[in-house]
Amino acid sequence: MDELIINSELHQYKIMIGNRIRYDINTLLPKTYSTILVITDDKVAEKYLSEVMSNLQAENIFTSIIPAGEQSKSFALFEKLHTEALTYGLDRESLIIALGGGVVGDLAGFVAATYMRGIDYIQMPTTILAHDSSVGGKVAINHQLGKNLIGSFYPPKAVLYDIDTLSTLPRSQVRSGYAELIKEGLIADEELFQSILSSDLMSLSQDQLHNHIRSGIKIKAAIVEADEKEKGMRKYLNLGHTLGHALETTLGYGVLTHGEAIGIGLLFSMYVSESVYTIKLPYEPLYRWLLNNNYPLFLEQLHVNDLITLMKTDKKTLNHHIQMVLLKNVGEPVIKEISDEDMSSYLKQFLRKLVIA
Amino acid sequence: MDELIINSELHQYKIMIGNRIRYDINTLLPKTYSTILVITDDKVAEKYLSEVMSNLQAENIFTSIIPAGEQSKSFALFEKLHTEALTYGLDRESLIIALGGGVVGDLAGFVAATYMRGIDYIQMPTTILAHDSSVGGKVAINHQLGKNLIGSFYPPKAVLYDIDTLSTLPRSQVRSGYAELIKEGLIADEELFQSILSSDLMSLSQDQLHNHIRSGIKIKAAIVEADEKEKGMRKYLNLGHTLGHALETTLGYGVLTHGEAIGIGLLFSMYVSESVYTIKLPYEPLYRWLLNNNYPLFLEQLHVNDLITLMKTDKKTLNHHIQMVLLKNVGEPVIKEISDEDMSSYLKQFLRKLVIA
Repeated sequence: MDELIINSELHQYKIMIGNRIRYDINTLLPKTYSTILVITDDKVAEKYLSEVMSNLQAENIFTSIIPAGEQSKSFALFEKLHTEALTYGLDRESLIIALGGGVVGDLAGFVAATYMRGIDYIQMPTTILAHDSSVGGKVAINHQLGKNLIGSFYPPKAVLYDIDTLSTLPRSQVRSGYAELIKEGLIADEELFQSILSSDLMSLSQDQLHNHIRSGIKIKAAIVEADEKEKGMRKYLNLGHTLGHALETTLGYGVLTHGEAIGIGLLFSMYVSESVYTIKLPYEPLYRWLLNNNYPLFLEQLHVNDLITLMKTDKKTLNHHIQMVLLKNVGEPVIKEISDEDMSSYLKQFLRKLVIA
Repeated sequence: MDELIINSELHQYKIMIGNRIRYDINTLLPKTYSTILVITDDKVAEKYLSEVMSNLQAENIFTSIIPAGEQSKSFALFEKLHTEALTYGLDRESLIIALGGGVVGDLAGFVAATYMRGIDYIQMPTTILAHDSSVGGKVAINHQLGKNLIGSFYPPKAVLYDIDTLSTLPRSQVRSGYAELIKEGLIADEELFQSILSSDLMSLSQDQLHNHIRSGIKIKAAIVEADEKEKGMRKYLNLGHTLGHALETTLGYGVLTHGEAIGIGLLFSMYVSESVYTIKLPYEPLYRWLLNNNYPLFLEQLHVNDLITLMKTDKKTLNHHIQMVLLKNVGEPVIKEISDEDMSSYLKQFLRKLVIA
């Protein structure tokens, strides 16, 4: 089992990565809790809930099951989970366990952050994508005007990552998670980037997966420790997300997976970087890898002005100007303000390029 | 102008108390903001909003006006204010000003705490009661199962307390605020307690008011600094609140003011303290003062079991046992677990005593 330690402003917590560690969950909890609420989604519940439940020891163990999918990060479910937690009698010394992907982690984490002004929670990611969201303490729900707009910084008490639970992931979820791993490689670890580009997602070994995830989490952890509240370098983690989030919102959550949208966003950020800094980045190799691994890269007709409006609702927007993460090189991200006019022209060229490619 | 400094875990902030300081608001802000949203209620808006607005300087100044009253601390208004803030284009560098009483402060503070994972806000209390809620960083909305159950610890960047705005308070609000000041006296300052008991709320001088509020805030500030997250002594601030909150919930918000409910709660906590510790506390003098100052002390038929159920939804509840703040003496609070059976008998005796008195 790998262990990483994160020093958050609020407290220190461990990330434990290992094979089949869900069977040891009871010994891996940071302390004993008399009441535990496991929040998960209906798909994860089918596969792993009973195993987790039977390995937990506490006086009172409850479960809340939400529908799988981004739509669950809503005000309505936020309120419903609070009602369930109150009805189950959770108090300030209780624990919430978020068992699932990023949606479960973000929502359950935000409930924990705001239940009686904050109780303990731990993240048990069951997707590759959640290697990113489960570390760093960002918890949130969506607003119809944009993703993750309502939330807190509220780190978990531990992250328990059972790599074995990734073996049942559908292909689209593997693609989704790998887009964030590629992003982390592009920001800070060229070796990770190259290793992924030489991997075939259809025939990943357990070792490849474990190593890629560990590398990704290390990058995420280092950045979060240096800048927990996203005043500076943590913003780099938004590489690919300016367009990615706008695509998810305009197409409707669920049409593209998060990572599939980020895949296109990463290409776009490279495209803009090459134009702004007149440099050459590995756009073509990434494009080919995404295509070979069945990432959807052909988009229906999109309205550039709508995309720009959505990009400006992003949390990184300052004084109505889009702040985009670009690359001066692999491993060298920068923040750049892009005017609406330039953004419009980049978007038009890029979307045309995608269609032609 | 009096200045107190609070050292919160997250940042330091100032409490400024003075006469007519709303006219200096622009110079008292902790920094310059390009976008400001003033959240207030319809009653405060009538009296003070235009003055505050005309003394603020920022590129963009917006207002959101909520209905006055505890009912506004709802999920629905929480969501609505987020929508307004997004529509106005607030970004992470924007400021929210909570202009009003505790309801506005709690709700606007919780919106600030969760808008794009937290933006700056300042408290401008316009009631005596809000001397308590505006200091310490507790922000929250209500759940139908109890008050303040959903919220965060999220301190303001400053508290600007214009004593002059208290001159237009209705009597019931003066009573409401003074109950919390009495509570602070009982917890930590017998002089404040005696000074209030020798004051007549119908003929308070500006100086009396200023001095009582400053003393109350000092006590609150000292306790909050010592125990921001309510792990220990901050719980003492709940003196009178176990029954007080339950009364507010069972009678419906708005039947009693918060402080009127706390007034009864304080009597109850003294009554239980005298029984548990076989001591004599100034129950009678407080009872007489409350009565002379027109606090409602005669309650309609209440169901003891309902009250106990509500008391157990309180955030201080641990493992389903009610944790009550009692007094061993004025200035000497303690936490005591009370069994349901004992609570039931105390409540029955106390309610009978109130009716007979």
